[in-house]
Amino acid sequence: MKTIGVAILGFGTVGAGVAKGLLENRAVLRERTGLDIELRRVADLDTTTDRGVALPEGVLGPDAGAAIRDPAVDVVVELIGGTGVAKKFVREALEAGKPVVTANKKLLAEAGAELFALAAEKGVDLFFGASVGGGIPIIRSVRDGLVGTRIETIYGILNGTCNYILTAMEREGRSFDEVLADAQRLGFAEADPTLDVDGFDTLHKAAILAALAHGFAPDVHSLPVQGIRGVVSAEDIAQARELGYRIKLLAIVKDAPDGLELRVAPTLVPADGMLGSVSGVFNAAMVKSDLDDWTLYYGRGAGRLPTAATVIGDVAEAARNLAAGTHRAVAVPKASREIRVKPLGECVSRFYARLSLKDAPGSLATATGAFSKHGVSISAAVQRGASADGFARVIVLTHEAKRADMDAALAEIAASPVSGAAPVCLGIEG
Amino acid sequence: MKTIGVAILGFGTVGAGVAKGLLENRAVLRERTGLDIELRRVADLDTTTDRGVALPEGVLGPDAGAAIRDPAVDVVVELIGGTGVAKKFVREALEAGKPVVTANKKLLAEAGAELFALAAEKGVDLFFGASVGGGIPIIRSVRDGLVGTRIETIYGILNGTCNYILTAMEREGRSFDEVLADAQRLGFAEADPTLDVDGFDTLHKAAILAALAHGFAPDVHSLPVQGIRGVVSAEDIAQARELGYRIKLLAIVKDAPDGLELRVAPTLVPADGMLGSVSGVFNAAMVKSDLDDWTLYYGRGAGRLPTAATVIGDVAEAARNLAAGTHRAVAVPKASREIRVKPLGECVSRFYARLSLKDAPGSLATATGAFSKHGVSISAAVQRGASADGFARVIVLTHEAKRADMDAALAEIAASPVSGAAPVCLGIEG
Repeated sequence: MKTIGVAILGFGTVGAGVAKGLLENRAVLRERTGLDIELRRVADLDTTTDRGVALPEGVLGPDAGAAIRDPAVDVVVELIGGTGVAKKFVREALEAGKPVVTANKKLLAEAGAELFALAAEKGVDLFFGASVGGGIPIIRSVRDGLVGTRIETIYGILNGTCNYILTAMEREGRSFDEVLADAQRLGFAEADPTLDVDGFDTLHKAAILAALAHGFAPDVHSLPVQGIRGVVSAEDIAQARELGYRIKLLAIVKDAPDGLELRVAPTLVPADGMLGSVSGVFNAAMVKSDLDDWTLYYGRGAGRLPTAATVIGDVAEAARNLAAGTHRAVAVPKASREIRVKPLGECVSRFYARLSLKDAPGSLATATGAFSKHGVSISAAVQRGASADGFARVIVLTHEAKRADMDAALAEIAASPVSGAAPVCLGIEG
Repeated sequence: MKTIGVAILGFGTVGAGVAKGLLENRAVLRERTGLDIELRRVADLDTTTDRGVALPEGVLGPDAGAAIRDPAVDVVVELIGGTGVAKKFVREALEAGKPVVTANKKLLAEAGAELFALAAEKGVDLFFGASVGGGIPIIRSVRDGLVGTRIETIYGILNGTCNYILTAMEREGRSFDEVLADAQRLGFAEADPTLDVDGFDTLHKAAILAALAHGFAPDVHSLPVQGIRGVVSAEDIAQARELGYRIKLLAIVKDAPDGLELRVAPTLVPADGMLGSVSGVFNAAMVKSDLDDWTLYYGRGAGRLPTAATVIGDVAEAARNLAAGTHRAVAVPKASREIRVKPLGECVSRFYARLSLKDAPGSLATATGAFSKHGVSISAAVQRGASADGFARVIVLTHEAKRADMDAALAEIAASPVSGAAPVCLGIEG
């Protein structure tokens, strides 16, 4: 039985999880891969903090470069994070002809093209399965299981912090701010939650999935992104629920002949469907393809051990390839056709809108007239009680419409004398 | 770019789907694999029926042996079904050193050991991803994504016919017989539905998942299996729903220090959880592992194109391996430890029981006394109205108990003078 030596760079949360997994499940990996995958080096500047993992004598050291150069190391796992030394070490490993496994989506977003080119030049694997969806094999499934299909739509609930907050807001009827404070206290949200709650983390993951599914490198800075902070209210969550929907922060990758929708937005999904059933910190991706219809992948999108599971899956594949003297010819596909990403205004969906209209004759006619004028067809309009100040809350659901038409109708309503508070508008998918 | 030639044996429903997928998505496969995967032969005795797929001139013929021997064919896809000529042709292909992709779980169950040994001897791949879960990459996920984890529990909803029937019984409040007749008319159930509704199809799939997860070949004939016919009534579906559960035909593969549960039974699962949300013909598998906690894989468990998607995924992997001059060293793992499958009586779960008890003082005490005597702890007991004949329906939910203890308690109740109709008992999981 061949032995494959592994080095882990970065002995933080996930690094410790990968070390634990490789040590404790070495026999399982032997049975399933026919290889002895041995943890030989762990590099971290901090060699004293107890991470709860008993490394064999001599494995832990401060020098990542030495770990990479060690002839007993065949596969390098980068779990340092960021784009500084992480990039340097990934380059060094690839230059040395050693396959690299990383969960670093920031590095992929900023230097992916350069690193994949280097990996191809050196003929080694560069795997990144844990960069999207943590413990969920969504990257593996898009890349392998669905390899022979045309992927039409991907919906992703890809940020555990947002899904935890939205679930708690619904269950407890509380505000975003209250729930966020709790989540921060419980460790489910960062002190600076911007990347999560404003949608950027989800957007980066959506971009990676779009790259795999459609073979192009989107410019994430130009993509439409809307988070949940300042957008999703407890009131809309309750209204949506009444109508049979839940609000989820959704990554949307939807192909059409006139271009690709690639964006992030809080979106209504059917409460009793699979996406609507994903609660708390769990993540899921739902994929529609020409051959396979809808498939869904669900699990923990983050966390020490779930992320480690996916990293070890990549290590095992790199090890198998090494043992066979091969590597993946295509790390990220390149489409032969040009991919056009649609601006937000061209994106088509059904919509949920909450209007505040003067509780007087003609108000609803003014609103419905505005929708009609802009070609937006209404499927339901329900008044939900009159408030004390003389304005009624009206919930409108539409048939499929272009976002630009919806926005024009809502702007017209907001500018009319019958409108109270500004309208709220969210898409409906699924 | 290397070209890999493919032969399909059996131009039936799935064969036509695979042909369609390979022809229409050839460019996608080129982008994603770096290989040109070309359909070169389709063999079927019936060369005249129109399957709705336009094969290139000269591809279709009646001679499977000639297709296998064709030097232009590198990968053989067996979609004939059964264990007669299918086995002969799979052997011929492997003997010729050509990798085989099959969806034939009957063949694997009856001749798997022999065929995997031959594939290993010849150093070629034998892939079977579509044999469980159709379009769901459950086999791929257990084999690759979870390769570094210890798999503790697998719950599978793996038979679309049963799930369609159970979903319709719940939604329409109708009997099994009525819904089955409809399903047969609509083509969702076979004229002889035994394999599906009596649980054997699910059991065969559970055995394949257990083999992959735990590295042993279970004897399917000795495993506990209970289907839905004659077991699940509209009344129990409604009662379960009231209590927040749905009834699903579940494959259960659960590891414990004292042995492995490997069985099929109609089971209550939480209605608002992920498994409870799997409705209609859709399938899902939910897996708990030491590192990855719970993950779930959902999609169409059958059908021409979804099954084809998975078959083509296997073809692509076999093609990549061939192009690299390699194959999977481990097709099905072999555990170093002995695996003991628990007899049904030793299996532990919570239980739902429906009792019919005389509507008289002391009846409930007799029943609860029987549970207590056999060490079964009750979590809830609810009387649901008194029927006209003087017997009350009592629903009992238990804490975790051994099935043997539960059966002993129920037998004692059934034999007591307070009991009317025989008790009904189903497990609760999830």
